[in-house]
Amino acid sequence: MYYLGIDLGGTNIAIGLVDEQGQIVHQRSIPTGRERSADLILKDMAMLALKVAEEAGVGLEQITSVGVGSPGAPDVQKGVIIYNNNLGFRNVPVRAELQKYLPLPVYVDNDANCAALAEGLLGAAGGVRHSVTVTLGTGIGGGVIIDHNIYSGFNNAGAELGHMVIAAGGKQCTCGRKGCWEAYASARGLIEAAQAAAKKNPASLLFKMVNGDLNKITAKTPFDAAEAGDAVAAGVVDEYLDYLAVGLGNIINIFQPEVIVLGGGVSKQGESLLRPLNAKVAREVYGQEGVPVAKLKLAVLGNEAGIVGAALLGFPPERRALVSLFGPERE
Amino acid sequence: MYYLGIDLGGTNIAIGLVDEQGQIVHQRSIPTGRERSADLILKDMAMLALKVAEEAGVGLEQITSVGVGSPGAPDVQKGVIIYNNNLGFRNVPVRAELQKYLPLPVYVDNDANCAALAEGLLGAAGGVRHSVTVTLGTGIGGGVIIDHNIYSGFNNAGAELGHMVIAAGGKQCTCGRKGCWEAYASARGLIEAAQAAAKKNPASLLFKMVNGDLNKITAKTPFDAAEAGDAVAAGVVDEYLDYLAVGLGNIINIFQPEVIVLGGGVSKQGESLLRPLNAKVAREVYGQEGVPVAKLKLAVLGNEAGIVGAALLGFPPERRALVSLFGPERE
Repeated sequence: MYYLGIDLGGTNIAIGLVDEQGQIVHQRSIPTGRERSADLILKDMAMLALKVAEEAGVGLEQITSVGVGSPGAPDVQKGVIIYNNNLGFRNVPVRAELQKYLPLPVYVDNDANCAALAEGLLGAAGGVRHSVTVTLGTGIGGGVIIDHNIYSGFNNAGAELGHMVIAAGGKQCTCGRKGCWEAYASARGLIEAAQAAAKKNPASLLFKMVNGDLNKITAKTPFDAAEAGDAVAAGVVDEYLDYLAVGLGNIINIFQPEVIVLGGGVSKQGESLLRPLNAKVAREVYGQEGVPVAKLKLAVLGNEAGIVGAALLGFPPERRALVSLFGPERE
Repeated sequence: MYYLGIDLGGTNIAIGLVDEQGQIVHQRSIPTGRERSADLILKDMAMLALKVAEEAGVGLEQITSVGVGSPGAPDVQKGVIIYNNNLGFRNVPVRAELQKYLPLPVYVDNDANCAALAEGLLGAAGGVRHSVTVTLGTGIGGGVIIDHNIYSGFNNAGAELGHMVIAAGGKQCTCGRKGCWEAYASARGLIEAAQAAAKKNPASLLFKMVNGDLNKITAKTPFDAAEAGDAVAAGVVDEYLDYLAVGLGNIINIFQPEVIVLGGGVSKQGESLLRPLNAKVAREVYGQEGVPVAKLKLAVLGNEAGIVGAALLGFPPERRALVSLFGPERE
């Protein structure tokens, strides 16, 4: 049997046909056209799903379910996206709309949760029961996997790890609170800190690398400049890692997952991120003699996490545990 | 059938015989005598458990299991307390020791987790699937109940909610980190803030209520002084509630439990705690249109939570869900 996984993004809709081991056998994507009404977007989505199956030579009778990972707040039970600003969704009945064209069970969840499910079962945290995936992008996305399942609270709105205050009364966050982890430890937080430091230090390599055009600073810039020996950039990176470590320490003290998976743009720094971060996180953990602690790992599934995670929504619980234990993507 | 629940404290060992509805039918306690070796403490514990059953006229064949809630880091699988400073425990085989005298299944978990299980199933959060119990005592204890079971991570050391940093680089915590929630929002945090404010304001009622003896300030003092119109105390309470609300907001954004139960000494302030706190927490929550949020409730089981929670460790999962749905302690 196969599973359809749909990653609904603000820019593209990506759809994959996934086998029982959680591997994508065929995939396609189209522009979302998010200025359109939800029913048109969902109709296109259903048509593309049918096309993906057809191109793979797989009939609907061979497909167990369709899973959709969407931004926004889901009502998982009803298969509805309650609210998403970016797509302009308000109580959009994703399941009901798709089922007009696809006579299959349809599961709907948040896209960050789907990515965490994929990394947690088949990616960097494959084989463990509890994992937390932290996506360091423009914001900080989070997903919590407990016993091989997404945990998102009674209203499916939990795991908002980026909106954990780590500096009460601190930097203003886009969510309205002050001092959220996201304000400091997201790619945006890093870029803002790098811009401020470059502006203050026009003699720094950080400043020179972008020829003084601060808008050209990306999350990569301070890491590159620090690597090249720039003390200003090294200071920015060090402070950034301090904030990142505080939040990761909190997640460990709270969840004690066996693995924390780091994804998103910043995670592309790889070992030069992980090495100093491990040392800083070790200092943040409420340790007790003789008790093991969580490991930090880099995400391995990349963009495919969205499709695979959405497809995994339809896997029966015992199958999820199985693919996690015997999945192919692990070390 | 019955269940024995044992609450092992630094001062007393309290043991109760609990029925299938989670109600204590008979209980006793003895001093812990924590200066003694673990095997002597555990032998006394077993003897008292036998006595409790005998006095209640219940034979061992009518008892399903024995549950022990102990301070410290448990190895739940092995029934061992890995580490507890207060009792001087290092890898104490609680299960194996008790089974020398009690031929019954023995379950061991952390005492804060047991209290959270009792409140989560039969107390203030009875009837809901996910709850978090926060105990505002000398420190901040926490327990997380997911799907009617204790969640404490892969190493049983999670749910250390008090050791979540909410003010990076802030007040020194006893755990070694800086800015932990516990440093601000525990009873001790409140008392320290009240002492500092009283010292600075000798004309305040806060100062006068203890005749200038700052060591006499308890968690109740600033609430009482504020109630009587003292602006200095009102300021202390307001700032305390701000910090408390930041951490509770984090817990909501992370867990979205249906109910957060507040226990411990500070929770005895009841409605005069809950009313202003609800308003502050509402501002801390990462809300999305149309999505319901967690409710704050006061703990209802008091000291019995330890015994009941320990006994509940032995309840089969489906029975836990049942007593939660149909338990007698709820509104």
